[in-house]
Amino acid sequence: VRQRLSSEPNPALSRATAQRLSQYLRCLTGTGGSPTVSSLQLARAVGVSDAQVRRDLAALGHLGQRGVGYDAAALGVAIRRALGIDRTWRAVIVGVGNLARALLRYRGFREQGFEIVGLFDNDPQKAGQAVEGLTVEPVSRLVERVPALRAELGVLTVPSEAAQGVADALAAAGVKGVLNFAPVLLRLPPQVRLVTVDLAIQFEQLAFMVRMAEPGGPAPPRPREGVEKPREG
Amino acid sequence: VRQRLSSEPNPALSRATAQRLSQYLRCLTGTGGSPTVSSLQLARAVGVSDAQVRRDLAALGHLGQRGVGYDAAALGVAIRRALGIDRTWRAVIVGVGNLARALLRYRGFREQGFEIVGLFDNDPQKAGQAVEGLTVEPVSRLVERVPALRAELGVLTVPSEAAQGVADALAAAGVKGVLNFAPVLLRLPPQVRLVTVDLAIQFEQLAFMVRMAEPGGPAPPRPREGVEKPREG
Repeated sequence: VRQRLSSEPNPALSRATAQRLSQYLRCLTGTGGSPTVSSLQLARAVGVSDAQVRRDLAALGHLGQRGVGYDAAALGVAIRRALGIDRTWRAVIVGVGNLARALLRYRGFREQGFEIVGLFDNDPQKAGQAVEGLTVEPVSRLVERVPALRAELGVLTVPSEAAQGVADALAAAGVKGVLNFAPVLLRLPPQVRLVTVDLAIQFEQLAFMVRMAEPGGPAPPRPREGVEKPREG
Repeated sequence: VRQRLSSEPNPALSRATAQRLSQYLRCLTGTGGSPTVSSLQLARAVGVSDAQVRRDLAALGHLGQRGVGYDAAALGVAIRRALGIDRTWRAVIVGVGNLARALLRYRGFREQGFEIVGLFDNDPQKAGQAVEGLTVEPVSRLVERVPALRAELGVLTVPSEAAQGVADALAAAGVKGVLNFAPVLLRLPPQVRLVTVDLAIQFEQLAFMVRMAEPGGPAPPRPREGVEKPREG
């Protein structure tokens, strides 16, 4: 009983798969239009075993042919469907600073089906400004505007101290998911999904990899390990 | 032999652990100074099983006491040492746009030991500009300036089409790691570590989680699975 109480394995594990699916999708886009792709190509590009690739893709249906590989176009369609990005997602951004401006200009979003349809900021000087074709509105209008804009996702690019308040406002306005860039742990109602992008964590991952590669660097933090052994069996 | 050729499991797995360690560290900072923390608290905050937390932390040394939990301060020190962030890392940013400005103002970096010590851009209009106390220099000066600045990491915030060229320049200048924000697959010499932050992937993860939570949503992409079963056994 204790174990059942104490573990929430499935969401995290599904997300790990989803993350790999996203990366496979990038590889497909990156291979420059080759009609087929092998599990080995995908494995090398993403840095997992090809057995892992085959397991992930087998769950999407019978897409691969032994000795031929996967049909790249069909695989792209299947991955996009599995990830839920075979349609457009409308999102609002709250907090119109440099990060929001960078996100607005980030071509990858629209290419992957994410459309920013509204901008909100609590700064009275910013309200009314036009940014990349959108007019900044006050945060107090979220409750009324999110449904009107048919926005399902909220992007949170406010300072840490404002993040929880804005997250509450987004939840009250009915968004289904929040993409949070503030380096804080947010509390959201259970029906609202949360992905926190902690940019410092990305830096830490890089530092970790550099440190591991250094001659005479510290021992890896987990020299022995039972569960996450190489997965190709 | 084929399996050995076709799999690169260890780097990816070590990174998965490092990612969890980073997240535990955030929780420690977020718990507001409580002297102890339990594996269950960390597990709930991060969304993994507490058995996973105990395995990850056991590899750092004997930090936990049954029934008492982990000493939060000691755990923070151990995690920072394991991640290689028990010291300062000096980094340069190449590509001084909105994203670079957002990163420069991101307090989390300095708090976690990352210091931006140089800014570079190929736009002649930007060279010489002062941004957040640093002067923008031309990319051609990287080779000479990276060693002078004692920078070990490079942050790449240029448009996709310029990314590989700048990555080559950073590698030639002697950085040990590149944090890439351009949505492209970069090729780097083997001694240079690479972490690519694909912001659209974060959006995709959120869309995936929202879709999975929808009543009548699609079946999960991997309804059956052998290897990544819930790990608490």
